[in-house]
Amino acid sequence: MRWNRASVGAEDREERSLDPADWEEFRALGHRVIDDLTALLAGVREQPVWTPVPRTVREALRAPAPRQGADPADVYREVRERIMPYPLGNIHPRHWGWVMGTGTPVSVLADLIASALNSNCAGFDTAATLVEQQAIAWLAEAVGFPSAASGLFVSSGSMANLTALAVARTARAGYDVREDGVRGGAERLTIYCSTETHSSVQKAAEVLGIGRAGLRYVPVNDAFEIDVAALERAIVTDRDAGMRPFCVVATAGTVNTGAIDDLRSVAAVCRRHGLWFHVDGAFGAVAALAPVLRERVAGMELADSLIFDQHKWMYLNYDCSCVLVRDPAAHRAAFELTPSYLAPTGRGIAPGHLLFSHLGVDLSRGFRALKVWMALKAHGLDTYAELIAQNVSQARYLGTLVSGHPRLECLAPIALNVVCFRYRRDGLGDARLDQLNAEILMRLQERGIAAPSGTVLRGRFAIRVANTNHRTRRSDLRELVAAVVRLGDELVESTSG
Amino acid sequence: MRWNRASVGAEDREERSLDPADWEEFRALGHRVIDDLTALLAGVREQPVWTPVPRTVREALRAPAPRQGADPADVYREVRERIMPYPLGNIHPRHWGWVMGTGTPVSVLADLIASALNSNCAGFDTAATLVEQQAIAWLAEAVGFPSAASGLFVSSGSMANLTALAVARTARAGYDVREDGVRGGAERLTIYCSTETHSSVQKAAEVLGIGRAGLRYVPVNDAFEIDVAALERAIVTDRDAGMRPFCVVATAGTVNTGAIDDLRSVAAVCRRHGLWFHVDGAFGAVAALAPVLRERVAGMELADSLIFDQHKWMYLNYDCSCVLVRDPAAHRAAFELTPSYLAPTGRGIAPGHLLFSHLGVDLSRGFRALKVWMALKAHGLDTYAELIAQNVSQARYLGTLVSGHPRLECLAPIALNVVCFRYRRDGLGDARLDQLNAEILMRLQERGIAAPSGTVLRGRFAIRVANTNHRTRRSDLRELVAAVVRLGDELVESTSG
Repeated sequence: MRWNRASVGAEDREERSLDPADWEEFRALGHRVIDDLTALLAGVREQPVWTPVPRTVREALRAPAPRQGADPADVYREVRERIMPYPLGNIHPRHWGWVMGTGTPVSVLADLIASALNSNCAGFDTAATLVEQQAIAWLAEAVGFPSAASGLFVSSGSMANLTALAVARTARAGYDVREDGVRGGAERLTIYCSTETHSSVQKAAEVLGIGRAGLRYVPVNDAFEIDVAALERAIVTDRDAGMRPFCVVATAGTVNTGAIDDLRSVAAVCRRHGLWFHVDGAFGAVAALAPVLRERVAGMELADSLIFDQHKWMYLNYDCSCVLVRDPAAHRAAFELTPSYLAPTGRGIAPGHLLFSHLGVDLSRGFRALKVWMALKAHGLDTYAELIAQNVSQARYLGTLVSGHPRLECLAPIALNVVCFRYRRDGLGDARLDQLNAEILMRLQERGIAAPSGTVLRGRFAIRVANTNHRTRRSDLRELVAAVVRLGDELVESTSG
Repeated sequence: MRWNRASVGAEDREERSLDPADWEEFRALGHRVIDDLTALLAGVREQPVWTPVPRTVREALRAPAPRQGADPADVYREVRERIMPYPLGNIHPRHWGWVMGTGTPVSVLADLIASALNSNCAGFDTAATLVEQQAIAWLAEAVGFPSAASGLFVSSGSMANLTALAVARTARAGYDVREDGVRGGAERLTIYCSTETHSSVQKAAEVLGIGRAGLRYVPVNDAFEIDVAALERAIVTDRDAGMRPFCVVATAGTVNTGAIDDLRSVAAVCRRHGLWFHVDGAFGAVAALAPVLRERVAGMELADSLIFDQHKWMYLNYDCSCVLVRDPAAHRAAFELTPSYLAPTGRGIAPGHLLFSHLGVDLSRGFRALKVWMALKAHGLDTYAELIAQNVSQARYLGTLVSGHPRLECLAPIALNVVCFRYRRDGLGDARLDQLNAEILMRLQERGIAAPSGTVLRGRFAIRVANTNHRTRRSDLRELVAAVVRLGDELVESTSG
């Protein structure tokens, strides 16, 4: 083990570091990793979408903590054998489970560079700060926000929603919530969203001390969009009862079906009642990047805050999500806090306030912005527009395949890039079909054929394809449909035989 | 621009991806990046610690969003010219500003691999899940927690503190805070910590809806440790007034001076009054890894929850922080939430509940655990013990250099790895010394000599060296001391001349 070298100065003979004794060894190992990862990505289409972790690997990954070190090349060998073959599979062209980006090669290099530079991106005088500001401005413009809007990259859509709702709470609580804390009881703060809203909004309401009791779920229409009239009635009722409605969360692309709330109408309701208008556009917001899709998210540009994930429909590697806030002062007001050891010095490494740590929870921050910046430079907004439109047109294509097959049916309108469907047979009731489709889904995953996920829509189990995959081709969707029909037929025949 | 290839199937002629047309190009570019980063890290000692971003680069990083893509090799060329030369500098052996880890070569490779695998680490059936469980168990044991404790890697110490305090709130509020939200007023929830506590605790109290009014700052003694008697008095007074004291935050390694609260006594106070005992050990917790230092953090193993950052004194690359909770059920109870599209399927990719998304805010999660796992395998706990002890002994060495010099003085006891000192001259008052030392600090940074940061201790400006740097040698500290004296002398002479 030649890493962890001791330095050789006379007085300092015993000092060690975690650097290699020979940087050539590091370089060679780096090349080997690059070679293996290239082969893995280049050949991913020929591999199963997902492989369960074998028992032997499970057991091997239960060893006690190592007291002694090992040669990094040997550690890498273990990574290669025991970890690399068992990822989630969202790098594969036929993974459409939950909502997961594919990852891109450029983004991998960006993460490598960001890691090596190792800058804490709290907002010091570094190139990283400028890159983050630029990437935020590019994204803001791309989704119809003013380029002077305030923004921050965070770890997840959940964290982005939490951040935005913290801003909304500070801006609209009607009292100094940072000083006083949340006041419960009769004057309870209330947030409104549809029953199709992502669970991270509930989590945010809980963390922020508003509680589930302060979260009002409004019903949806047949297209799974928020019932705007019901929304307005709920606000008026609560206000009349002495509560403090302060925010509406609309969704651009619901997780279940990809439905997009009527954002213009929700914006109008918020305006009429003085509420903060937040849009959870975790994946759907990027529809604004494609001219052919932009109209579907019309009204999003009116939001007070908007979140969307770069690790979803911008295909970037985990993790990166963006929160945008129209009013920079409101954004800062929710988080700004300067202890003495972070006081600006006017010059040097920390000349001003730490821009980014004043906009969210994190003080230490990785350089997520680099992958956004490099991906936008390498691919350009036009390629993004094309790929996002391609995924939507592939979803429509899948819809056509499903509708055109007598033993398949769609369970929800295809609003964007999500297709919910099931295998069906005349004479089989919903309970049997639920069981049957759940089994089909498991076999698709277990056999490594494809990885949709499942959900329940109006009580019925659906196989759910969320297409945020830049590697997917229409031929992959044909393969999926053929496999679903084949597995369904097999299952029906094996039980009816 | 040969990336963004179109696939070539007949019907699918127009389909594109973000993959390179030729994976050899990606591999070659990857090698080039590895070569450059190796050179950068291997040669970092010969470079200035920090270089301000030049005006030309600032201007270049204000270009409008690219509509068209560019060759990734050209994008990388821009990264190499405009971004790589201007990092924060914490990769350098003479960076001791704020509290920042150095980063390690093994950790860089881990980030590369994690990015390429691109698994969402919410807790699916992947090797990543097993690696995270194993890394958490290793760390738990290493800091004296039971290996069955619950834990989670998050983006930052701030986020880790927020997570732990959310658990404390749910466990000890005395009502269903997730359902009801925080109740303000007379029955206000209150948290206790010392005046030296990191600002992230205040931020967490604000985000959680407890508010600054619910955060009680307790004075410190001469060693900057919490006054335990005053702590207990504050709890009793608040409880008598009808409030709900629920948590004490003790610190193992304060950010200003590295002071360690008397953890055993704080634990006893918590036990007597039924309060949750949380320890913010952002950097100091790892003292437990070194046998010679373990006694200094005695009592930490009694905590209900503990946080510490791997990107600080475990030297790993941004970002990675760990929150540990003794009672796994309490941890889950604060965050568990399962919407229909995430219901466990018993088999396949998501057979059970998503382990990790039930333990914190994030649902989408990157593979932070890999760098912890690889670093512990490559270096071993014994090397960590040695390096942590080395940093402490270097801090003591710096203290000796400071005390031994007639024009330098320490401004706080050296409890661990933080040294706060200043240049002084007989006849110069505190106001002049504050100004003088602030100027010395700026020149150290601007000239690229060294990067301590500054703070204010009992009204006096201090140059602050927080040594979480595995590349530092004692010779670097001698260089620092010589530079401080030289700059101080120059400044005094130039104004008195």
